[in-house]
Amino acid sequence: MSNPVLVELRRGNAVESMHRGAIAVVDADGALRCALGDIERPIFPRSAVKAFQALPLLTSGAADRYGLVDEELALACASHNGEAEHVRVAAAMLAKAGLDEQALECGAHWPMSDAAARELAAVGGSPGALHNNCSGKHAGFVCLGGLLGDADRRWLAGYVRHEHPLMREVTHALVCLTGQDLERAPRGIDGCSIPTYGMPLGALARGFARFASGVGLAPEHAQAAKRLRAAVAAAPFMVAGTGRFDTRVMEALGARAFVKVGAEGVYGAALPELGLGLALKIDDGNTARAAEVVTAAAIEALLPLDDMQARTLRSLAEPRLANWNGLEVGRLAPTPLLRDALAPATRRRAAGQAEAIAP
Amino acid sequence: MSNPVLVELRRGNAVESMHRGAIAVVDADGALRCALGDIERPIFPRSAVKAFQALPLLTSGAADRYGLVDEELALACASHNGEAEHVRVAAAMLAKAGLDEQALECGAHWPMSDAAARELAAVGGSPGALHNNCSGKHAGFVCLGGLLGDADRRWLAGYVRHEHPLMREVTHALVCLTGQDLERAPRGIDGCSIPTYGMPLGALARGFARFASGVGLAPEHAQAAKRLRAAVAAAPFMVAGTGRFDTRVMEALGARAFVKVGAEGVYGAALPELGLGLALKIDDGNTARAAEVVTAAAIEALLPLDDMQARTLRSLAEPRLANWNGLEVGRLAPTPLLRDALAPATRRRAAGQAEAIAP
Repeated sequence: MSNPVLVELRRGNAVESMHRGAIAVVDADGALRCALGDIERPIFPRSAVKAFQALPLLTSGAADRYGLVDEELALACASHNGEAEHVRVAAAMLAKAGLDEQALECGAHWPMSDAAARELAAVGGSPGALHNNCSGKHAGFVCLGGLLGDADRRWLAGYVRHEHPLMREVTHALVCLTGQDLERAPRGIDGCSIPTYGMPLGALARGFARFASGVGLAPEHAQAAKRLRAAVAAAPFMVAGTGRFDTRVMEALGARAFVKVGAEGVYGAALPELGLGLALKIDDGNTARAAEVVTAAAIEALLPLDDMQARTLRSLAEPRLANWNGLEVGRLAPTPLLRDALAPATRRRAAGQAEAIAP
Repeated sequence: MSNPVLVELRRGNAVESMHRGAIAVVDADGALRCALGDIERPIFPRSAVKAFQALPLLTSGAADRYGLVDEELALACASHNGEAEHVRVAAAMLAKAGLDEQALECGAHWPMSDAAARELAAVGGSPGALHNNCSGKHAGFVCLGGLLGDADRRWLAGYVRHEHPLMREVTHALVCLTGQDLERAPRGIDGCSIPTYGMPLGALARGFARFASGVGLAPEHAQAAKRLRAAVAAAPFMVAGTGRFDTRVMEALGARAFVKVGAEGVYGAALPELGLGLALKIDDGNTARAAEVVTAAAIEALLPLDDMQARTLRSLAEPRLANWNGLEVGRLAPTPLLRDALAPATRRRAAGQAEAIAP
């Protein structure tokens, strides 16, 4: 069984490429509002769950102890561009916990943003761990670790490993949000060396519904989720960066939507006013033009939008493709199948129903 | 009907992502040696046909008139990295025809190679048309145009358009190689503004078989194809660049294989000693990790290789994925279905048979 085509790229008068995948929209009780494709097969959520992994930073008291502000909490949830501001804020987080770049075990890479990479090269720089798109998440980890391990760097060493007490705290939050037994789940190593655990899209979507509403969570998790959502809404640049999808959506929608990319074509989103979560995975792992299009189409279908919000979401759901001379050469768009599957969710939401839509 | 999965990405103990597509291996008479997936649906070959589009540069006499050397002929077939050497050779081609960068209508973009882009930024540079990955192809076009239009720049203007006499010459070569009526084919505009015409994978593969063998071509096309194959084998760096798949394959195999990438997950290859051509398209448009893996697996299956060649091809067919700390986190590999479909081609080649394998 193959998942359905969710996104098509048209060039001239023909479909040139297509992206298959699956999507689940769920409430915090696990009732499906919309499902398309196989939402039971475990997928690696990758960076889509960074906000879940940041919860212990708050529930432990570390965020308060070190006086972390919105920008820093948003960066703890980020897959950022490695722009100068991201690097500055990551360094500031570490300094507050009496730590520095040396404590980070995420590895170094040139900034994810090509422009930021060229700017770094233009001043003769080279990339360090602070430029890693995960440096904010890791800074959050080591701030938490600073508290748990009493700022003992020897205790922190190896924190990226599955069995380290710091990573166990982080994984425990994932278990609470998704309701999954992650000890027995498929396991891989992420780009930044921490474990990633396989889980069904439906469970991931439910995690986002809980993150959106607090329903089904312990009070301290519900409170921490609320604070993280507010922090990212207040500082959406920190969670991604210039021109990036997550930043643009949250600049337009503020606290009405929390969206987070994961590598290999994953997105998760929390829609607090509806108490809904959504999760999707593109089979071929394409993020920039497939997972983003599906996420934008889902938000368009689910949330009532004002004119400016609608224009932003439509431009993200149906991006024009221009070539090097600026000529429009094609367009990405959600397939009618995806639009149809999402549309009834709006109608059923109005009617208060909660049945699954068969794929 | 969906195309089969040709490539899987495994992370840890699970399949994380997958790529579907189609492939055809054909001889110059059109007899299928191997086919998997839908090889009748028109696809845009994009840059995979650059060598076909370069044939008029030779058949017109322009290459001889301007004294173009192997490096320059290879660059005319290239989707290059925009490294300093590529830029230098593109400029040299233009100078030989009394032209310069201003004649190119491909548009400008930062070098395709991230490292080359950062090097350019580090010296305070900015990208021009010579950095465009298609600058060699366009330099070849305007060298041809210099001859056809008697070096009249007004005649050259607008050469990227479908109906321009220069582009008609270029398209005529495509028609001769592929046997397709391109006037009635689906049409799109490529990244560098020239037209791209939809054609079945089988026809594209047959074009590469003709390019490999000369069979079915007019003598001047056969001769020009032979010269281009030799030029690229002599200067494989020019056709792509540092670390790139096409360059690595031809550095390892020399004139035994001509391989050429096209955007959106397309590859074409000519195997002269077998008289075979192959063409493939990944449905989702992924080139770097899907189309390359399938191409490497096909060459592995079709050509007898020495140990060093076999090691190179195996590393390209089953690349290890390392994270930012250099840890191996996963692997790409052709699916057993693809391996099985390709394997009989080797056996049938030995037996001299030429039936299609049903998808």
